[in-house]
Amino acid sequence: MNRTDWPDFSKNELIPTIAQDAETGDVLMMAWMNEEALRETLATGRVVYFSRSRQKLWRKGEESGNVQELKGLYFDCDADTLLARVNQVGGAACHTGYRSCFFRRIDVDSGTVVVEGERVFDPEQVYGQK
Amino acid sequence: MNRTDWPDFSKNELIPTIAQDAETGDVLMMAWMNEEALRETLATGRVVYFSRSRQKLWRKGEESGNVQELKGLYFDCDADTLLARVNQVGGAACHTGYRSCFFRRIDVDSGTVVVEGERVFDPEQVYGQK
Repeated sequence: MNRTDWPDFSKNELIPTIAQDAETGDVLMMAWMNEEALRETLATGRVVYFSRSRQKLWRKGEESGNVQELKGLYFDCDADTLLARVNQVGGAACHTGYRSCFFRRIDVDSGTVVVEGERVFDPEQVYGQK
Repeated sequence: MNRTDWPDFSKNELIPTIAQDAETGDVLMMAWMNEEALRETLATGRVVYFSRSRQKLWRKGEESGNVQELKGLYFDCDADTLLARVNQVGGAACHTGYRSCFFRRIDVDSGTVVVEGERVFDPEQVYGQK
């Protein structure tokens, strides 16, 4: 298929995928999809990534229950980045328990890091001691 | 510096950077920063990426005038992805003239691609014939 009309996995097997809360617009996380993950995401309506560390499909929320219901899937001008608009079940996308993985802000004036995010769950209760 | 308290360039020289409209929440684009780009972004308050195709710093908007004024800079739990909240001068982040690079949606039911984005400028007028 032409790269202008479908996400392009020919240059890179894994392409970055941004997950955005479909209601609030919050950017929740960034992970990776291969072509199989994209196909399964479209087929099931739940977001599936490819885990680089585990080298296999990562059905987001499989363990925690915090699945991402697909509300819209977009790709960019170069067809090498995806944007998934989702309903984040459980309210938290991050394994640390924060709503968004982007819970730390660099304060531009001072150069210090500020934790701004909202913690929705205690990861030890969800995943157990690791 | 410890990877938990600052963006981590030790594993990857380039880390993905999501640009989000600070007012509307729209995801505008995804590009890459190296450490130098991050430093210059923080020092100047304008977003600077690293262009993989040109292999040099890319001061976004240098040619078109459509700079991105930095409103907030976040990094994720793994410290390997950045999120820049910006004011997109000129209203369009995409070189194709669309407000967002994610102007194409995959319709999940039909599998077809729908152009949803709003075109803000004609790229031929801004960049000339290429």
